[in-house]
Amino acid sequence: MSITLTIFTLISILLISIPTKLQPIQSSIGFSILGYIIVDYLIPKVKDSFIKRGLFGKDMSKIGRPIIPETIGIIPAITYLFLMLFFIPFLFQKEIIDSNLNLNSVFSHSKLSSYLSSLLSLESMILLGLMDDLFDIRWRHKFFLPAIASIPLLIIYNFEFNQTSILIPKFISNFFKFGKNSINLGMFYYFYMASVSIFCPNSINILAGINGLEVGQTIIIVILLLINDFYYIIGYYIENNVLAKSAFEIHQFSVCFLIPFLGISLSLFKFNKFPSKVFVGDTWCYFSGMVFAVIGISGHFAKTLMLFFLPQILNFIYSSPQLFGLIPCPRHRLPKFNEDDGLLYNSFTLYFDSENPNLNSNEIKELNKNLIPIFNFFEKIYLIKLIRNKKGEIIMSSNLTLINLTIIWFGPCNEGELCNLIMKLQFIIGFIMLILRHTLAPFIFGFDNSWSMLNRFYL
Amino acid sequence: MSITLTIFTLISILLISIPTKLQPIQSSIGFSILGYIIVDYLIPKVKDSFIKRGLFGKDMSKIGRPIIPETIGIIPAITYLFLMLFFIPFLFQKEIIDSNLNLNSVFSHSKLSSYLSSLLSLESMILLGLMDDLFDIRWRHKFFLPAIASIPLLIIYNFEFNQTSILIPKFISNFFKFGKNSINLGMFYYFYMASVSIFCPNSINILAGINGLEVGQTIIIVILLLINDFYYIIGYYIENNVLAKSAFEIHQFSVCFLIPFLGISLSLFKFNKFPSKVFVGDTWCYFSGMVFAVIGISGHFAKTLMLFFLPQILNFIYSSPQLFGLIPCPRHRLPKFNEDDGLLYNSFTLYFDSENPNLNSNEIKELNKNLIPIFNFFEKIYLIKLIRNKKGEIIMSSNLTLINLTIIWFGPCNEGELCNLIMKLQFIIGFIMLILRHTLAPFIFGFDNSWSMLNRFYL
Repeated sequence: MSITLTIFTLISILLISIPTKLQPIQSSIGFSILGYIIVDYLIPKVKDSFIKRGLFGKDMSKIGRPIIPETIGIIPAITYLFLMLFFIPFLFQKEIIDSNLNLNSVFSHSKLSSYLSSLLSLESMILLGLMDDLFDIRWRHKFFLPAIASIPLLIIYNFEFNQTSILIPKFISNFFKFGKNSINLGMFYYFYMASVSIFCPNSINILAGINGLEVGQTIIIVILLLINDFYYIIGYYIENNVLAKSAFEIHQFSVCFLIPFLGISLSLFKFNKFPSKVFVGDTWCYFSGMVFAVIGISGHFAKTLMLFFLPQILNFIYSSPQLFGLIPCPRHRLPKFNEDDGLLYNSFTLYFDSENPNLNSNEIKELNKNLIPIFNFFEKIYLIKLIRNKKGEIIMSSNLTLINLTIIWFGPCNEGELCNLIMKLQFIIGFIMLILRHTLAPFIFGFDNSWSMLNRFYL
Repeated sequence: MSITLTIFTLISILLISIPTKLQPIQSSIGFSILGYIIVDYLIPKVKDSFIKRGLFGKDMSKIGRPIIPETIGIIPAITYLFLMLFFIPFLFQKEIIDSNLNLNSVFSHSKLSSYLSSLLSLESMILLGLMDDLFDIRWRHKFFLPAIASIPLLIIYNFEFNQTSILIPKFISNFFKFGKNSINLGMFYYFYMASVSIFCPNSINILAGINGLEVGQTIIIVILLLINDFYYIIGYYIENNVLAKSAFEIHQFSVCFLIPFLGISLSLFKFNKFPSKVFVGDTWCYFSGMVFAVIGISGHFAKTLMLFFLPQILNFIYSSPQLFGLIPCPRHRLPKFNEDDGLLYNSFTLYFDSENPNLNSNEIKELNKNLIPIFNFFEKIYLIKLIRNKKGEIIMSSNLTLINLTIIWFGPCNEGELCNLIMKLQFIIGFIMLILRHTLAPFIFGFDNSWSMLNRFYL
């Protein structure tokens, strides 16, 4: 083991230090390997101190509900931050040389400030996420924490770029007779960016509850983003022109953020996957969501980013009747663990049962009569599972989460397999979106920025 | 109260937003008032959640040793960070205008990166300080935390300035026949800067133990630094030339960091001063020390900064026989609280007493014979207090801290008065240093950078 470690450390140092034409992407792979090694070393070393400080949770889907350290996501998050700081000289190597030759030196500086402000936003998010894990901030406050953390990014965006146009679909611009294919949002562009940074962390936070899923879903999004990035990077080598270069630089920047992030995520996943040895905490959901928001905002491809969050968006829409109180929402909506066969089954919301009127009558409300036809319809199209009493009244409905829905479709499942299944579905959906984005988008928006038809402010 | 609050909030908003010739210093006063108000609002609101999370300490110098929330320094620290982020547009207003006119635009960008990297260093320090308060990092590790936090600053320093010369006294350069008054430290300059950032936080951390002193001493250093800064700023208005302008800009930058810091410090002091309602935690010592290190390093006046740390340096030297184990060091060296008169008395280290040989014989060691003449000499010059048995053997010596020394000189004292006394002594020492720095320095270094004789790389 120690020899493998030494070899990988050496490889990563070589990747970082040897100047080739593949820099800075080559360095980012080196930092990714280093990140994996450091997180892998730190987590077993520190996890007991987290329990000692009261940072732990019970694993509800295991026999005996063992106690497991919580908020461990802070370890890869801090590791990532310091790696990205050490990355600076390698990331800006070309710019340093250009700047010494007095070529294009202003651009390099604005890129540097944008990079530093991204790191400031990430670090603020880690700090606020940690505050949340420590002091259980109220829901209505914590929802906005990512917007606060995005302030450094937005201020520097205003200072350095202040580019507030977004592209609109051709049919809309034709309909309203704009006469152009972009619209300047002005001030509202900053609300749009703040919304993106509120959306990403919170949507990861909502799709959670089984071992490994918080980290697993971020790994899938990273892979999808990397495929998209390399599509542009390869495109630049095929069509070597000015427009392709602009897209290349944006996506190279994104790759440099994502590859080290993949390293620390995989390392954390090793400990968080079924059966979990550590829990990641809200800190991780906030931090990882913010990494995506930062990349999408500073690379000006927030709309493409949203496509890869489709499963999270669907989960939010599917959950909303319970989240907004149309249907009663029990405290826990996790799937139900069966100790006998070790599988996860659907969990249910209970309704008043006229055959057993005394059963927990305090907690249980009657099902709204208007919802019954809707429930019956959703049952037919396999979107909900209903349990009826002998009179045919609905006394239970499955909880509205993507996890429960997956169990409805694929049957009771081992926790680890369930997580893998959801990750696979997420990848398939994301990949289809990726193909649609590069085939349909040119028709909808009138043109595409990929390869020879590049436009930096398109995505 | 609510009316006062509204008035002060309005005043601060006016100070920030009205563009006058006094900007950005005028804005910094506005942010300082806002900082005071926010911290004053937040601390009472959140302090109970700190106790709930296990972050509390016992106040040893009070009757009944009450439990008091610990690590509250994180609140002003985070408040400061976000204020400094909102400060960016106001701080760089002139540069934005210049940059639009294409004047001097590169300089503005490198100043911005330096500012952002300072904030990154501060934020890293807060995060690592919080880790220390949460998980009790070992002494030999925590000593180096500030060096890790200073990495963003050092990397950007290398990237943007890479100016590694320091001025040396004339007699040394004459002696070694350098033929010039500065020496290029190269790589070692980065070790020098890292040492400054290790020194400031740790030296504040050591001079602690009575209510209000951690925050009180930082307030005194801020005041001394502000006097020094305004000496240069006023100098620029008297001698309006290029060299004076360069010093003016550095010290204006320093003032913009310090004035908001003063606001949050005063607000924290209100809660931390005798009788303490909150404790500040290592987070505060690290954070406040790092604020000074960042200002000294990026303003290139680390040596002047050290002058204002003289009491902390003396405390360290005075403590070192106990810290390095020459004399036994009891676990607590705080002064001893007397419940009867409510005053603080000297605390002592006990030695083996041949008249009472059985008294705690396990814990107590014999006094090293070689130290006796030194002890006797120090007693004569009032640097130590000794207690002897009837045989004339030394059985107790006062603990070697500046706090104990103050009690030797001025007698037993109420805790609040003792803190005020030490702060006054600190101010007097610092002010003398300030005068010496501006009168003796020109003789030692051959020239001075103040007023008409300015040199940016002197301090």
